[in-house]
Amino acid sequence: MNVAVLSGGVGGSRFVRGLLGVVDPADVTIIGNVADDLEVLGLHVSPDLDSMLYTLTGLADEERGWGRADETWNALDTVATLGGESWFRLGDRDIGVHLVRTQLLREGLPLSEATERIAHALGLQPALLPATDDPVRTFLETPAGTFPFQTWFVARGHRDEVDAVHYAGSPEATAGPGVIAALEGADVIMIAPSNPYVSIAPILAVEEIRDALVRRTVPCVAISPLIDGRAVKGPADRMLTRLAGGTSPAHVAACYEGLLDVLVIDESDAPSEPIRGVGRTIVTQTLMTDVAAARRLAAAALHGSGTLA
Amino acid sequence: MNVAVLSGGVGGSRFVRGLLGVVDPADVTIIGNVADDLEVLGLHVSPDLDSMLYTLTGLADEERGWGRADETWNALDTVATLGGESWFRLGDRDIGVHLVRTQLLREGLPLSEATERIAHALGLQPALLPATDDPVRTFLETPAGTFPFQTWFVARGHRDEVDAVHYAGSPEATAGPGVIAALEGADVIMIAPSNPYVSIAPILAVEEIRDALVRRTVPCVAISPLIDGRAVKGPADRMLTRLAGGTSPAHVAACYEGLLDVLVIDESDAPSEPIRGVGRTIVTQTLMTDVAAARRLAAAALHGSGTLA
Repeated sequence: MNVAVLSGGVGGSRFVRGLLGVVDPADVTIIGNVADDLEVLGLHVSPDLDSMLYTLTGLADEERGWGRADETWNALDTVATLGGESWFRLGDRDIGVHLVRTQLLREGLPLSEATERIAHALGLQPALLPATDDPVRTFLETPAGTFPFQTWFVARGHRDEVDAVHYAGSPEATAGPGVIAALEGADVIMIAPSNPYVSIAPILAVEEIRDALVRRTVPCVAISPLIDGRAVKGPADRMLTRLAGGTSPAHVAACYEGLLDVLVIDESDAPSEPIRGVGRTIVTQTLMTDVAAARRLAAAALHGSGTLA
Repeated sequence: MNVAVLSGGVGGSRFVRGLLGVVDPADVTIIGNVADDLEVLGLHVSPDLDSMLYTLTGLADEERGWGRADETWNALDTVATLGGESWFRLGDRDIGVHLVRTQLLREGLPLSEATERIAHALGLQPALLPATDDPVRTFLETPAGTFPFQTWFVARGHRDEVDAVHYAGSPEATAGPGVIAALEGADVIMIAPSNPYVSIAPILAVEEIRDALVRRTVPCVAISPLIDGRAVKGPADRMLTRLAGGTSPAHVAACYEGLLDVLVIDESDAPSEPIRGVGRTIVTQTLMTDVAAARRLAAAALHGSGTLA
């Protein structure tokens, strides 16, 4: 059974790690968000792809929730001492990945190829495909101005309310190599419990990818990132409130209008009536407290889609 | 008393550290070799400038003899794991410096300005001037082929005999900002105990700099890097044997023909007759076993030049 998963960073990575306990990793293709990529200190950083990579290969720092385990910070400490750009927290081991990626990109390789080489070297089993090799970038329009994603998220601590989200470069972007084939060859398409606006929407902003989802012949299952109307971490709930008018499952579903067959939501969000535009709603415990909980969530989502007996 | 010192890496750095114990650091200008600079992992590395910087600011690893103290290697270990370029040993703290330097250069700053900012941030007292902002690069012609300096020195462990040395880019290069003024304003010009062929000659390959030395009106004092006809470290003796025909003080002096007033040599090399082309020979202990020994050597060199009472 082939599974294609659209995913952002940490939450998505943890979901996919659970999924790999339910289906053969060789049958899973991850379509990763690249619209929060940035260039910092001359390095091309792909935070969502790396969250996935680190989480699935056991290199992630689980307590900190981002970056690598057993990390040191000597390069960035030096950068700070020298008055260089140190607002984006890059650990030494993490920098090693960015140095290699950046060099491959400078040699002319597309991001997909650079990602594949790094993933292969780290022994990643499922395919990890950037949604696009083109420079799609998320910008947040806020009362304080319009900011690139990481400036808003990291440098300004996502304190600014978001009035609108733009995906610069998306009109010209094409899907990365293998992405459309993975969607077309999938027995089920999943949308990980990631932020709809800044993790999933930038993937869907690539017209080819959205079109592939629209014309799907297999179920598409989204897992809501909210629990009791609140984001486990990050600004998804605040964004939904301001941009969609609320944080109910219906508001989440509206983000994926026309694309969803099944929505998986937490027990705390169980709606009193059917959700418009969703064929089926699965109510379960969605908090991924550990790998086993993530595995149960993935299994429930697959069961709900009718693709897991 | 203003002192201008032409210098390469480790030996030169240790000499300058001694010199700073004898003259006011504010009166010292270091003219550093940049012809062994390289781009590795997309980073602009200036090994000789950094050796100087680290040695004079107390950041150098004295035991290892290169790089920084209290260093970690996590970025490069990751690079190696990913099959990236890991032959040139870059520590994490060291990488921090290269990231900042490279970013400043990409922003369009010349190397001199980038060096000044880094040196200022680290609290370096004497002026550290790259000999040139232009990309002069040392190439070694050997029986195994012609190699860039670091390929020959690091990757091949300087095992290949050298038939000739080229300084690519030197015909077009001009002296870095302040270099000629420092030479013209100096009360004494010193040539540190560095490798004549790969540390000092690339500086002198910049015609403006050589001309400034030729028309000097103050003494120029070189300290021989050899002790008992042998290099303390590195390939200077092998290069002198093959390229100059021997490792006597006269062979060292011949490297600086027309530029020297005083040559400082070790007791073990005391010649039986005057050295052609050198006005005065100072015989002393030149092994810099510690900072005090380096200070004595610097004082002896200055005394010998007649510029220190």
